[in-house]
Amino acid sequence: MQVDLLIRHAAQVVTPRGRGPARGAAMGRLELIPDGAVAVRDGRIVAVGSTAAVEASISEAAEVFEARGQTVIPGLVDPHTHLVWAGDRVAEFEMRLKGATYLEILQAGGGILSTVRATRAASMEQLIAETRGRLDRMLLHGTTTAEAKTGYGLEWETERRLLDVLHQLNGLHPLDLVPTFLGAHAVPEEYRADPEAYVGRLIEEMLPAVAALRYPTDGPWHPPWADGRAAWFCDVFCERGAFDLAQTRRILEAARRLGFGLKVHADEFEPALGATPLAVSMGAISVDHLVSTPPEHLEILARSETIGVVLPGTPFGLGTGHYAPGRELIDRGGALALATDLNPGTSWCESMPMMMALATRYIKLTPAEALTAATLNAACAIGLGHEIGSLEPGKQADIVLVDAPDYRHLAYRYGINLVRTVIKRGRVVVRDGALQIPGG
Amino acid sequence: MQVDLLIRHAAQVVTPRGRGPARGAAMGRLELIPDGAVAVRDGRIVAVGSTAAVEASISEAAEVFEARGQTVIPGLVDPHTHLVWAGDRVAEFEMRLKGATYLEILQAGGGILSTVRATRAASMEQLIAETRGRLDRMLLHGTTTAEAKTGYGLEWETERRLLDVLHQLNGLHPLDLVPTFLGAHAVPEEYRADPEAYVGRLIEEMLPAVAALRYPTDGPWHPPWADGRAAWFCDVFCERGAFDLAQTRRILEAARRLGFGLKVHADEFEPALGATPLAVSMGAISVDHLVSTPPEHLEILARSETIGVVLPGTPFGLGTGHYAPGRELIDRGGALALATDLNPGTSWCESMPMMMALATRYIKLTPAEALTAATLNAACAIGLGHEIGSLEPGKQADIVLVDAPDYRHLAYRYGINLVRTVIKRGRVVVRDGALQIPGG
Repeated sequence: MQVDLLIRHAAQVVTPRGRGPARGAAMGRLELIPDGAVAVRDGRIVAVGSTAAVEASISEAAEVFEARGQTVIPGLVDPHTHLVWAGDRVAEFEMRLKGATYLEILQAGGGILSTVRATRAASMEQLIAETRGRLDRMLLHGTTTAEAKTGYGLEWETERRLLDVLHQLNGLHPLDLVPTFLGAHAVPEEYRADPEAYVGRLIEEMLPAVAALRYPTDGPWHPPWADGRAAWFCDVFCERGAFDLAQTRRILEAARRLGFGLKVHADEFEPALGATPLAVSMGAISVDHLVSTPPEHLEILARSETIGVVLPGTPFGLGTGHYAPGRELIDRGGALALATDLNPGTSWCESMPMMMALATRYIKLTPAEALTAATLNAACAIGLGHEIGSLEPGKQADIVLVDAPDYRHLAYRYGINLVRTVIKRGRVVVRDGALQIPGG
Repeated sequence: MQVDLLIRHAAQVVTPRGRGPARGAAMGRLELIPDGAVAVRDGRIVAVGSTAAVEASISEAAEVFEARGQTVIPGLVDPHTHLVWAGDRVAEFEMRLKGATYLEILQAGGGILSTVRATRAASMEQLIAETRGRLDRMLLHGTTTAEAKTGYGLEWETERRLLDVLHQLNGLHPLDLVPTFLGAHAVPEEYRADPEAYVGRLIEEMLPAVAALRYPTDGPWHPPWADGRAAWFCDVFCERGAFDLAQTRRILEAARRLGFGLKVHADEFEPALGATPLAVSMGAISVDHLVSTPPEHLEILARSETIGVVLPGTPFGLGTGHYAPGRELIDRGGALALATDLNPGTSWCESMPMMMALATRYIKLTPAEALTAATLNAACAIGLGHEIGSLEPGKQADIVLVDAPDYRHLAYRYGINLVRTVIKRGRVVVRDGALQIPGG
């Protein structure tokens, strides 16, 4: 067999296995191949194994990567980002250091709503430029696929512009995006006196408009599985000051009727509003945050098909020191994924390895569990476990070379970038730590 | 005036000012120049101010950096690193996550002494290659000067080899190093039965040998202020299981007689062994760690000329969540500096911006205080406040351009690298985020 790309003599090739999420103890079981190799053809992985075995199975390789001293892992997947916004909230960061709480800032009309104002005022060009910078940083840190939410528009015109940005960049940038509609991110200022009217608008106008919207999928970097749907998922921020449980249920029910997959921001601050059991009962693909989820709700989640997505960057970014009970979710047999929560308020960090460094230290995941949570389980949390998230023949060739002889360095070391090479669908897009995007 | 380099139209030029450390409330007072410029000639800063004012003072510039949208800060200074070692301790990291105690790690062959074994066994070539990789990552994250300790030899031959590595790299690499002798890092295995004999050896043989040793200073990157001394400082790890207070005093007294400046690892774990008041009374230039320093010792430190160096990477790396009372030291009027503690056991992180991100969130420094702690005060903690640490005419032209419109982004965002350009003594050594070392 002739192949396009052969990576060989890696210190380790390390990957979870499967098309569905790893649960409980299985999250810690990685395949680890010393002196490993991966072969790629037509954008797909065709062989994974020892260098000797893979070389025996192929006749010729158009490009060969000598990976001595490096570790080869699946492309990282970030299943929860608020990717598209304008501006920053650095002043709010400094206020918070001096004692203001997140909910105080939110209730004072700051927080999310200040980014909504900046985003509504931004041009398409500004939004694309700022978002592209974030995509570049994500790719440089090994993220090859990410979920991306709207939610800084909160009115049809701007939410639609955010979807435009996502779909345009999905075709132009190698990092694949899975779009989520998060019109229910906050109640916009103009509806403060009548939040129910905004919920009605979401259900009756915005969700149907998103469901009806289609985008072209013929850009140079659109993934083969892109189907033109404006959003695959509908997400709701269920929290005091955002949407209550009854509103969350109504929005999710409307979304389900329209064919959206469901996601919920659950238990980020207030304990036990009930969003986790609600999301599970409605068949959500993931519930995200889980910082204050009580044990009985964790147990419901662990016994379900829903994936728990924990976002350690948020407690870190806020400096609270109070992290999600992700260890407990795994110990109860659940499936856990990691994400950055990339956003300008609580956690502006594009790096999934940083999330692995946080999750090992503060949620007590093992490095193996953290890798599974950042690859296979993260892929499953956005409906792509059959395409990405592991190094196995047939899967999309999204591959990362790490400049360390052991995958655990990704969590052991922190605050720097060990990713040297990133391969997206068989094409090299980061080389020697620098972007090198064909046609980009 | 003709200049070699002009940086202009920066969103902000931001710097502390002075040749001595900023203390107490003064740590938060930065000079902040919108639309700022810096001019460089013969490796020194010759003008800092608004672009209009700086341009009016010069006639021609050989190279011009347009810094629109970027922030210009002084080169970062890392005043506490264990830079030179071989190997890693990733297995120990995983054991600790699973709850292994210090003793269990020791019995499994872990801890400082495992790095001592690996370092003693390493060739000069291996040590230089591994150390150079760390220097490259530090430089890419904006560190232009660092202190570097020995301490993984614990016998003359290897300690001497570590000094050889430091001095060789100081001449070959743009990042300037200030060497510290830390023979008193741990009691080596061969002296376990008789630690006093090792202390005697340190005092009678090793310290005099270090004091007598001189290195050439004619490498292409040796700083003009390098004077060939093998080590400027002597440091002692005063801790239960390392060196007790009486031993620390004897080693420091011997070092002082030989002309070394003094540094102490104080109060990292055990509370109030008394290392902080001892170090202050002996005129140490810094006391480092301070995690468990009691208020009465903080007060002694705050009233002294000694700088408190806090190392938030260590509690972060260990996942303890218990940080040094640096806020309190500043509030008592003391001078605080930040450092990475770069080492393979507790904190393998080369990034000073990561330390600023930790110090703001967990020690409650303001971003302004964190910048002062990572520049001017860090320079003073290694005796170089007159040369580096601020952007002022006459100082060495060590300058960092940050890809953000406000210096606070260095702490607000985290886990990624915002440093785009690094200038060392007037020469560009990082351009567009990539190393570009003339003659390197």
